[in-house]
Amino acid sequence: MFRFLTAGESHGPCLTMIVEGLPAGLEVEKEIVDADLRRRQGGYGRGGRMKIEKDAIRFLSGVRHGKTLGSPITLQVENLDWVNWEERMNAAPVEAEMEPVTRVRPGHADFTGSVKYGHDDVRNVIERSSSRETASRVAVGGLCRQLLSQFGISVHSHVLSVAGVGYETPRGMTKEAYSEEMWRAVEESPMRTADAALTEKMIARILEAKRDGDTCGGVFEVVAFGVPIGLGTFSQWDRRLSTRVGMAMMSIPSVKAMEIGAGFETTRTTGSHVHDVLRREEDGSWSHPTNNAGGIEGGISNGEPIVVRVGVKPIPTLAHPLPSVDLATGENIDQSRYERSDVCVVPAAGVVGEAMLAIVLTEALLEKFGGDSIEETLRNYRSYLQQ
Amino acid sequence: MFRFLTAGESHGPCLTMIVEGLPAGLEVEKEIVDADLRRRQGGYGRGGRMKIEKDAIRFLSGVRHGKTLGSPITLQVENLDWVNWEERMNAAPVEAEMEPVTRVRPGHADFTGSVKYGHDDVRNVIERSSSRETASRVAVGGLCRQLLSQFGISVHSHVLSVAGVGYETPRGMTKEAYSEEMWRAVEESPMRTADAALTEKMIARILEAKRDGDTCGGVFEVVAFGVPIGLGTFSQWDRRLSTRVGMAMMSIPSVKAMEIGAGFETTRTTGSHVHDVLRREEDGSWSHPTNNAGGIEGGISNGEPIVVRVGVKPIPTLAHPLPSVDLATGENIDQSRYERSDVCVVPAAGVVGEAMLAIVLTEALLEKFGGDSIEETLRNYRSYLQQ
Amino acid sequence: MFRFLTAGESHGPCLTMIVEGLPAGLEVEKEIVDADLRRRQGGYGRGGRMKIEKDAIRFLSGVRHGKTLGSPITLQVENLDWVNWEERMNAAPVEAEMEPVTRVRPGHADFTGSVKYGHDDVRNVIERSSSRETASRVAVGGLCRQLLSQFGISVHSHVLSVAGVGYETPRGMTKEAYSEEMWRAVEESPMRTADAALTEKMIARILEAKRDGDTCGGVFEVVAFGVPIGLGTFSQWDRRLSTRVGMAMMSIPSVKAMEIGAGFETTRTTGSHVHDVLRREEDGSWSHPTNNAGGIEGGISNGEPIVVRVGVKPIPTLAHPLPSVDLATGENIDQSRYERSDVCVVPAAGVVGEAMLAIVLTEALLEKFGGDSIEETLRNYRSYLQQ
Amino acid sequence: MFRFLTAGESHGPCLTMIVEGLPAGLEVEKEIVDADLRRRQGGYGRGGRMKIEKDAIRFLSGVRHGKTLGSPITLQVENLDWVNWEERMNAAPVEAEMEPVTRVRPGHADFTGSVKYGHDDVRNVIERSSSRETASRVAVGGLCRQLLSQFGISVHSHVLSVAGVGYETPRGMTKEAYSEEMWRAVEESPMRTADAALTEKMIARILEAKRDGDTCGGVFEVVAFGVPIGLGTFSQWDRRLSTRVGMAMMSIPSVKAMEIGAGFETTRTTGSHVHDVLRREEDGSWSHPTNNAGGIEGGISNGEPIVVRVGVKPIPTLAHPLPSVDLATGENIDQSRYERSDVCVVPAAGVVGEAMLAIVLTEALLEKFGGDSIEETLRNYRSYLQQ
Repeated sequence: MFRFLTAGESHGPCLTMIVEGLPAGLEVEKEIVDADLRRRQGGYGRGGRMKIEKDAIRFLSGVRHGKTLGSPITLQVENLDWVNWEERMNAAPVEAEMEPVTRVRPGHADFTGSVKYGHDDVRNVIERSSSRETASRVAVGGLCRQLLSQFGISVHSHVLSVAGVGYETPRGMTKEAYSEEMWRAVEESPMRTADAALTEKMIARILEAKRDGDTCGGVFEVVAFGVPIGLGTFSQWDRRLSTRVGMAMMSIPSVKAMEIGAGFETTRTTGSHVHDVLRREEDGSWSHPTNNAGGIEGGISNGEPIVVRVGVKPIPTLAHPLPSVDLATGENIDQSRYERSDVCVVPAAGVVGEAMLAIVLTEALLEKFGGDSIEETLRNYRSYLQQ
Repeated sequence: MFRFLTAGESHGPCLTMIVEGLPAGLEVEKEIVDADLRRRQGGYGRGGRMKIEKDAIRFLSGVRHGKTLGSPITLQVENLDWVNWEERMNAAPVEAEMEPVTRVRPGHADFTGSVKYGHDDVRNVIERSSSRETASRVAVGGLCRQLLSQFGISVHSHVLSVAGVGYETPRGMTKEAYSEEMWRAVEESPMRTADAALTEKMIARILEAKRDGDTCGGVFEVVAFGVPIGLGTFSQWDRRLSTRVGMAMMSIPSVKAMEIGAGFETTRTTGSHVHDVLRREEDGSWSHPTNNAGGIEGGISNGEPIVVRVGVKPIPTLAHPLPSVDLATGENIDQSRYERSDVCVVPAAGVVGEAMLAIVLTEALLEKFGGDSIEETLRNYRSYLQQ
Repeated sequence: MFRFLTAGESHGPCLTMIVEGLPAGLEVEKEIVDADLRRRQGGYGRGGRMKIEKDAIRFLSGVRHGKTLGSPITLQVENLDWVNWEERMNAAPVEAEMEPVTRVRPGHADFTGSVKYGHDDVRNVIERSSSRETASRVAVGGLCRQLLSQFGISVHSHVLSVAGVGYETPRGMTKEAYSEEMWRAVEESPMRTADAALTEKMIARILEAKRDGDTCGGVFEVVAFGVPIGLGTFSQWDRRLSTRVGMAMMSIPSVKAMEIGAGFETTRTTGSHVHDVLRREEDGSWSHPTNNAGGIEGGISNGEPIVVRVGVKPIPTLAHPLPSVDLATGENIDQSRYERSDVCVVPAAGVVGEAMLAIVLTEALLEKFGGDSIEETLRNYRSYLQQ
Repeated sequence: MFRFLTAGESHGPCLTMIVEGLPAGLEVEKEIVDADLRRRQGGYGRGGRMKIEKDAIRFLSGVRHGKTLGSPITLQVENLDWVNWEERMNAAPVEAEMEPVTRVRPGHADFTGSVKYGHDDVRNVIERSSSRETASRVAVGGLCRQLLSQFGISVHSHVLSVAGVGYETPRGMTKEAYSEEMWRAVEESPMRTADAALTEKMIARILEAKRDGDTCGGVFEVVAFGVPIGLGTFSQWDRRLSTRVGMAMMSIPSVKAMEIGAGFETTRTTGSHVHDVLRREEDGSWSHPTNNAGGIEGGISNGEPIVVRVGVKPIPTLAHPLPSVDLATGENIDQSRYERSDVCVVPAAGVVGEAMLAIVLTEALLEKFGGDSIEETLRNYRSYLQQ
């Protein structure tokens, strides 16, 4: 049974993840996970924290001599900033008086978390609600990616728009609409956008927001290639692949919207323009000349790329803070607090989106193919393809 | 522990649902659930099936003399059409030769389900992948709604657009943007749209599609009022309220897109225009003059209406069918099959959306407040409000 | 994902079960399930209710023309006694005044359930806490049994002792200790005991208890043959096969004790007398000349019969009732209530034990081998055996 | 939602646990957890490993200044022996040739785990199947214990017998059968047995086994005091408190048997001697003069001590090894492998049993009372007691 938990405060000693249910004998490389962590830390528009942290995992269990054991895998990412926070974030009581954070930031969990958990010090909330937690998911996703690659599945992301600056014509979603070259360009762009001119325009937009003490959101696209026909099911509402993709994407902090395939666009036209015709090729394989369904029909993968578009709201922490409330006094105040933050995290959010999609596909794949060793899972997979 | 399962084929004898974990002593009325089932069956653009079925539940367990017992609740909805399908859908083997369905409809589970489950007869797929299954969820939601009303929580839906025909200016999302009168108008409109002129325009659009043998999708909005601050948590990715709302909405058949609050719109502007300022009122209550967050901040409800907008693709079953494949011969064909269907289900999908939101809120509420009897749960809830 | 829920009150209209996650294409026969239900209703020492009920299932979903569809399966068992209880157990409010049950029976959920759920009428508790609920599990188990038989797995039970009357020398637990002939004798014995003389002694003991207005418990043994090496895992505490067997057996009403293999006996000797030596046979197969482990080592099946011994306390409902309390008055009373009941249910409990073991093995088997159709699951299973 | 995962190999760098769902604001002390870890490491009959390890936790998340935050709690226990195993157990590939373990020990997961996971080196199995993993559970239980103590619940264990040497007359199970003084004596006994003479006899028995190169099992009892009426439910088979206690106890490595309350003894007599009469005291409280039910009736706690007796088989690793098989050659061998081990772990297993019971009670308590802060949970609990 594939499952995982993540833990860790933003300024605590480390992030810790336990991942269970990956088959034994799978070759896993720390370097592949670390590369994903670095990709998450990059992107134009990031703040000072990204310069402090050089995220890298350590395997503390479940992996031996480069292969999974079948036992739970522990991954740990040290917080290099911890040295500056040891007293403020110590697990044990400390002598020094700590000044509590009491001014809440609009758009964050500062207010809701304080009420829910009965905290007087908003620090007790923001340490976990911080999107530093997404590094945990990227690490787990980096592990899943290594499983998926055994099955010929790869997951990519790129940025479609930032604060309204984006592609002017809609991009296609068939296999042919993407290329190795394109993904290389994405990885080289500080905006994770293949189009160099667009990258520059986006950067200019972010700079403008920064000058205004403001922040930007945007839209990223995640795409999975090589997903076999048959993952997910309509049998029960919570087992649909669309359900799980929805769950995964909407779980990312700051995400407020998502689409599978043509999404909202399908609501503006009629059925005959939307549905993807199925063709049987001469070699017996299946194809769809269009991919408006984004690779999922009836809650099940249909062999086309899984395409998801995800809307990220602007970061709530503004250099020119909005009015708010001080929870200690209960008074309305003109400016909430500013805590070091980024101006735009859309490229990073895309990397988190990749991880979440990799996680969802791993779960669905292991559910269908079973297996306790990678040989067994692969054998089951191959015999299904040949059936 | 709140959980439920649904079962039932579209042309089988009935739909059956088991719901567990509602507190004991809750007054529940069959009529309230039936009213929701009727609302799901209505709306302009529905096909012939809706005339056959008069959905109504029967409680088969868990309710005695009008109150819940604390034991699992069984709800059953008879399929009145069953008499015409007894042989074709019999659980036992039958003598007669059954002609299998082999031509798959684009946009449906026909193809993906057949490959996944190894079915030769597509009927074995479509009976469960049919959106008749959503009646089950509406029934479960109708039960949850009765729990929520004890806590002052109500859930509504209305249609924002059909095939691009919709409100021309964006609607607000604060409490004040909605009214009892508006919801009454929604319930009276065959399009579930408060604006009478818009209702007529939508109907005209559907008629046009129908004439073309085509189908329409659209966008509906679900809103929950009275949700207390503090449901859901950022503590783990799968416990966020946004995660669960995402899961719930993306699980609805034909849904391809969703937004919480201002959604994609937030990606087109900057942070200072998006985040909802918190105010403390003189009576000690909290308010936000705007509700771009759609009632969820940091994965937790913030006391404002929960607002979700959901995009429904056009129905895949076209009266002028698209080209497809015959699975029996493996040959490409010019026209897939037509099975009796609707032209537009957006109003009905909105009712399903209400049910799913009611389910999600019930789960989150019981998780926070616990309790084995409604008195206990209410007592815990009230003491939290006063804390 | 294999999961199921059961529902239904003892004197409600029916018992309802939804079972999800069995592969498609599996041949299932109603008659096999009904046979198990009849076996549960039999056994010497049962009361009048068993004469009223002739339990039989109806498939209401998930099965078509004798084969599973892959969609959730609904099973329903009518309560024939319902006609006598329609008013007292009606889901809707009724006009007539109902006299509440207020005198609690020691050993039952009468007291604990009333306090937990805040019920004034103990009837609201006992309708679900009644062991009639176990018919639901037997039905689910009867379905699982049909899956398992495809993999050569069979599950049996017999009674070892009743009120201390039982086998005088311990029985072995290797494959050789059991035979087809023995199981035939078990099925023919009203005590579900292969030894005819012992059957008579047990009956005499039950008669004696009955004369005294008293009740008997006893010990049954459940055995599963043909379980492949490798089900369950030590990887996490809740995934051990022993954990799941423990869960399953201790969930049976009135069960207060259980042992896997030699159980408590292993605590009275030393390791060299307990552990089962592994041998490799000339044909490459594995064997253990003893089976003190009861087929589970390190939380994983080892290829030997799974053997579980389970202790059932005497039925709490005594014809000569024990002193108790009247919850309405809060007064101590000399005699609690008598509600029609059995004198001894150990043979029936054994049939429930079979069902629970079949359920546990089904879950563990599907987890390991995956598959959405029975062909796929079998193919995966066979290729594992050959690896 | 309370849940946890454990991870870590026996000779890896550390054990890691993530615990989610404890309310915020709970005071937790590392020292209390460490004391439990020390109690697990003690007991007469332990081997050399216990001298190397001085288990102590480090909180890596979820706790700040001595109180829980409501976010997931990470606990880590370093393996001091790791320095000697860095190469053999390294996560990364190493240059040196590693000699695989291939001779399997009867009674362990060595054989079953190797077949299941397809491992050639039994080391890949035994590192996780080792009962070192139980230290993880003791740590989690030590955290739960601190929650439970807020509700007046305490959990203890003691040893009833070792290799047949034990109490000669059965011990009672009512509150009065236990005393503070008795538990103090237990904590001071190297056998965790209150009776000093019995302690000596047990030690003599262990010494004898040791001289023979053999091992001993035994029986321990776990008792929880102060559990309120109403935890667990008969509503669904897997929510019974007995189910969860069964799951918890049977999950402990080497446990082969368990009883709740009088257990198997109840099967040897009749109902009138077994069931615990309920009395209402003059102060309005409830009592049962006997406790044969072990505190659970109808799957729900009844206010009496929860009493569980658990049978632990002798340790499988014998200094005079049993015959076995070499998996590399497939040959039957006269002696399996000896790896440093204990002679008797029954006292330690009792401490693990305490932890598992504390975990089960924590889950059931939080399910009933809800709450996101300890104040909220306590408030809900107190108002239930007064209802």
